[in-house]
Amino acid sequence: MRIGIIGCGYWGPNLIRNFSLLEDIEVVGVSDLCEERLKFISRFYPSLKIVTKDAADILHSKKVDAIVIATPILTHFAMGMEALKNGKHLLMEKPMTATVDEARILIETAERNKLILMVDHTFIYTGAVRKIKEIITGGELGELYYFDSVRVNLGIFQNDINVIWDLAPHDVSIMDYLLSTPVRTISATGMAHFDNRIENMAYLSIGHDSRLISHIHVNWLAPVKVRHTLICGSKKMVVYDDVEPSEKVKIYNKGVDYVKNREEAYNILVQYRTGDMMSPKIESTEALSLVAKEFVSAINEKRQPLTDGYAGLRVVQILEAASQSLKQGGKVIKL
Amino acid sequence: MRIGIIGCGYWGPNLIRNFSLLEDIEVVGVSDLCEERLKFISRFYPSLKIVTKDAADILHSKKVDAIVIATPILTHFAMGMEALKNGKHLLMEKPMTATVDEARILIETAERNKLILMVDHTFIYTGAVRKIKEIITGGELGELYYFDSVRVNLGIFQNDINVIWDLAPHDVSIMDYLLSTPVRTISATGMAHFDNRIENMAYLSIGHDSRLISHIHVNWLAPVKVRHTLICGSKKMVVYDDVEPSEKVKIYNKGVDYVKNREEAYNILVQYRTGDMMSPKIESTEALSLVAKEFVSAINEKRQPLTDGYAGLRVVQILEAASQSLKQGGKVIKL
Amino acid sequence: MRIGIIGCGYWGPNLIRNFSLLEDIEVVGVSDLCEERLKFISRFYPSLKIVTKDAADILHSKKVDAIVIATPILTHFAMGMEALKNGKHLLMEKPMTATVDEARILIETAERNKLILMVDHTFIYTGAVRKIKEIITGGELGELYYFDSVRVNLGIFQNDINVIWDLAPHDVSIMDYLLSTPVRTISATGMAHFDNRIENMAYLSIGHDSRLISHIHVNWLAPVKVRHTLICGSKKMVVYDDVEPSEKVKIYNKGVDYVKNREEAYNILVQYRTGDMMSPKIESTEALSLVAKEFVSAINEKRQPLTDGYAGLRVVQILEAASQSLKQGGKVIKL
Amino acid sequence: MRIGIIGCGYWGPNLIRNFSLLEDIEVVGVSDLCEERLKFISRFYPSLKIVTKDAADILHSKKVDAIVIATPILTHFAMGMEALKNGKHLLMEKPMTATVDEARILIETAERNKLILMVDHTFIYTGAVRKIKEIITGGELGELYYFDSVRVNLGIFQNDINVIWDLAPHDVSIMDYLLSTPVRTISATGMAHFDNRIENMAYLSIGHDSRLISHIHVNWLAPVKVRHTLICGSKKMVVYDDVEPSEKVKIYNKGVDYVKNREEAYNILVQYRTGDMMSPKIESTEALSLVAKEFVSAINEKRQPLTDGYAGLRVVQILEAASQSLKQGGKVIKL
Repeated sequence: MRIGIIGCGYWGPNLIRNFSLLEDIEVVGVSDLCEERLKFISRFYPSLKIVTKDAADILHSKKVDAIVIATPILTHFAMGMEALKNGKHLLMEKPMTATVDEARILIETAERNKLILMVDHTFIYTGAVRKIKEIITGGELGELYYFDSVRVNLGIFQNDINVIWDLAPHDVSIMDYLLSTPVRTISATGMAHFDNRIENMAYLSIGHDSRLISHIHVNWLAPVKVRHTLICGSKKMVVYDDVEPSEKVKIYNKGVDYVKNREEAYNILVQYRTGDMMSPKIESTEALSLVAKEFVSAINEKRQPLTDGYAGLRVVQILEAASQSLKQGGKVIKL
Repeated sequence: MRIGIIGCGYWGPNLIRNFSLLEDIEVVGVSDLCEERLKFISRFYPSLKIVTKDAADILHSKKVDAIVIATPILTHFAMGMEALKNGKHLLMEKPMTATVDEARILIETAERNKLILMVDHTFIYTGAVRKIKEIITGGELGELYYFDSVRVNLGIFQNDINVIWDLAPHDVSIMDYLLSTPVRTISATGMAHFDNRIENMAYLSIGHDSRLISHIHVNWLAPVKVRHTLICGSKKMVVYDDVEPSEKVKIYNKGVDYVKNREEAYNILVQYRTGDMMSPKIESTEALSLVAKEFVSAINEKRQPLTDGYAGLRVVQILEAASQSLKQGGKVIKL
Repeated sequence: MRIGIIGCGYWGPNLIRNFSLLEDIEVVGVSDLCEERLKFISRFYPSLKIVTKDAADILHSKKVDAIVIATPILTHFAMGMEALKNGKHLLMEKPMTATVDEARILIETAERNKLILMVDHTFIYTGAVRKIKEIITGGELGELYYFDSVRVNLGIFQNDINVIWDLAPHDVSIMDYLLSTPVRTISATGMAHFDNRIENMAYLSIGHDSRLISHIHVNWLAPVKVRHTLICGSKKMVVYDDVEPSEKVKIYNKGVDYVKNREEAYNILVQYRTGDMMSPKIESTEALSLVAKEFVSAINEKRQPLTDGYAGLRVVQILEAASQSLKQGGKVIKL
Repeated sequence: MRIGIIGCGYWGPNLIRNFSLLEDIEVVGVSDLCEERLKFISRFYPSLKIVTKDAADILHSKKVDAIVIATPILTHFAMGMEALKNGKHLLMEKPMTATVDEARILIETAERNKLILMVDHTFIYTGAVRKIKEIITGGELGELYYFDSVRVNLGIFQNDINVIWDLAPHDVSIMDYLLSTPVRTISATGMAHFDNRIENMAYLSIGHDSRLISHIHVNWLAPVKVRHTLICGSKKMVVYDDVEPSEKVKIYNKGVDYVKNREEAYNILVQYRTGDMMSPKIESTEALSLVAKEFVSAINEKRQPLTDGYAGLRVVQILEAASQSLKQGGKVIKL
């Protein structure tokens, strides 16, 4: 199988490297608008056959069987459609598209053309998230009570999209995967602190059925990098800290009981924890290598990939609703 | 000066101890509804003259000049009014009252009777919060951009009030003190996961004038104790982690600049921090001893205390509006 | 039972408080050479009957059944002998005595007079150390390989004893309790950085039988407080971090295997951990309350206490040998 | 300039990548004894002209100007001599050689042939170590009191060398660079817990002139990766934690003063820190890229590199003496 990559920014070399490492896969070419970046890429990957400023050279190439779209989000739809129309299988960077409608059309087009459409929700393929999914599926947490995620970056501002579209796709895709429960309501507040009127921080409150709620805090403007997720169930709770080098996932044994009397409550007040904790060893395989494998396998086996177009669509639905709420000052939006 | 304490739960012994340590102050008596608690208190403080189940024994005692109300919140107003009517200066545990109206009446009554009315917003008197206030007042942070606070406790559930009234008074009083800016809008979401229909977790989104926003997450249902506050300005940012033993306050030197080019952005993406950090030594005097001192000084000097009735009122206003929003599914409330 | 306390410095109020809380125990009196300290103590514990500068008032009092010696170490032996000769049971602060000979004479005297002699090796009674003992006794760690302890304090210098006699008693008593294995060799290096020629930092290398070794680093001169112990066995390893608020004890599941090939070794090189980790909930009862209980129980039941004179003697033997090695530039001393 | 690399294990791809990125530098070839490894390397670096099992193909190649020796230590001397005799500049992985004599001969040979001889003491080129050197050189720490380093790895056992030769070169080279002070005495204790009789853990006590002492703990057998160095001066102290993602270097403002009185000492006892702390932003350039640059610059400028043969020799002297002490049960060795 021969892969072409459109857009070769920060993520580009990682895509090339991980696809290159797979058996029977060749990364044939890359395109990028920036000449300097192309030079840099060529130097490191002298075996690339097509290195071009014109995406069409990849999209229309007969030497390419499958395409990865890693361009800015506003171009995703057009690029994706072109790829599908040219009969290429498609792996799209997240978020899949800039609108729900675009996502729907891509899904239909891929289905009609019998092509694989996958979205690179990378975090789903990390050892940590897979381990947590395993714990939840095994029923260890009991009834799910809440999902709370904080993702804070160090002052990298996008000029085309706000922080919700930039950072929240990670948290929303993790939430979608782990909870396997529809989203019913969303409200979002946030602020654009700079002249460009693009929100650089936002809080998303998400309602599901039953007693489960979710909350996501995304922020470009923080002094330290934070990636911290709390998943609380009736029996156990999970803390997932992606910045922590050695203990990314911690499972706490005891949640809450009614406190029997005042003395017991006073005693708990001075504690920092209430039950045993277990921190499983996390598989450290690079997530993107599993993304690449899944894409290739889905093509070979003619099956839906784990993070298919519908997963991409669900994420875009939530981002779109959140943006809508943000524009209306935090109004609750129903999905 | 002779002090009487009404309500002697978790906080009671701390109040007795800290007032006892002041020069020329005598803790004359305490009341509590629980006999066993009174026995325990007597054993430790054999010098107490009044140890009683009947609060009236303190409220009406001629041996008492000033009263501390440390009972459940629903009784605050009645107890406080009785104390003021009997000519006693008044220190009230937070939150000051269960409604805005009650707080207003207490303030008026105290003023009419020329009595000192103070609220025990303890955190305002900690070395950490005082240090942060000093930093903000000195202009070191620049324009304030956001205040984000997370306060998570270990499964201690109150039966009479929800988590907003239990935990948020800490964060709201800190916010009120540090930002010195009015609150304009509030929306709150949350959930009651247990049969009693009392919310055990809540998120508060708070709007101020200009580009400043605040957010508070309070939660009774978490595996680890978290007390984490982020205050971000245009020049510097402060991280205040009250659980951290040795570095409670960290000041980060550099916030955000527009990133010049893609390579620079890629470089920042793999970093965990972007500027120098300074963690000042924090004064470790027990906050409650400063609360006691401030109360006594205000009485002696016939002046408003730092955390006066108006500070208490502002906190209650926010809690009341948040509860209202929570009941209406996150509707934005204007103050 | 009536308790008298000789020496009322930092630890004094804790001793009074914890003995006072026991049923049927009365703390009758305390002595201290410092008048100001006695005033402070009286204020907090108005029920004390004897508050005196003269230790003899306690040692000879007919109202006292048992005595706690919490004076500087150089006075321990004389005070202890006087107490035993007056028929008082004896709880001694650590280290028990300044020499091995003194410790031996105290043990013999106590035995001859059928009095209880106990040493306050407080750490043995903490929830953390008791939990680790339970784990080791249960065989969970396999064969013990090493015990490594670091105890670093913040610039508090003693004028009468060096850092080995001040801090190492904690680590040595924990080591003695947990390993239950004799010490065969000791070498110590260290340095006196200040004019008083008293060593303020030291490293102790300790040999046991078989393949077990121990090492202790004690230091008065450090920027942050460290209390970190590593106990490694052939099956599992324990990290005990006493400064950590919520996870004092961590048990790591996997030690070491021979690495099968180069690729596997490269993979491990970039990891931070190799197996599952479990952090048990630690009982948070104050250790000193258990010390007080054990002392009283041992007296009532006429039995040896857990940390008896022999435990105290073993610790003093190691301290004495370490000091000897230190003076000889790190020469290996055989016990 | 054309570079050849001999030995292409864990470090090999990093060497290729970093030299490749330099202007006007070509990595011409690599050799390794393992065929599979060569295949892996070829795949990633298809531009390599020589990929061979026979080191002589590199050592004798006319296409090679400078050689990097990254083979097991026992072969360093022979490979290095061969390279120098063939007129190649030489960068050697640490430790430079297996004996002091070998190091001396290499230095002489390089000098006689006017070739650059450099040792890859990588850590010297990290942002953290360079920042600490800057702080020390600026006099900020005052008189240096001690250097204490702990380096603990996760169960990777070497079959040819013990833990001192494997891990201590990092700490010893950092110590040598930062302290710029000769080593006078060394004693080492340790243990081989496994059948191969190769020590897997060791403690090195190092004496210098004046009141400065050093200590290094290296260990293959630990549950978590630790890289923690403490450098204490009379004015300030530095904590360097290489595992910490965001605060690798911390400078603590206040060391120690004589404590004025007992109350002050009691107060310090409950603290976790005594002065302000500053954590500078650390330059994140990959250290190995600076190693490569320094090697190339030294060749071009015909000057000694920062980590020259003498630096390599000093490290080997200490390792040799430590091994000698270890074999003699911890005997103090004079240098």
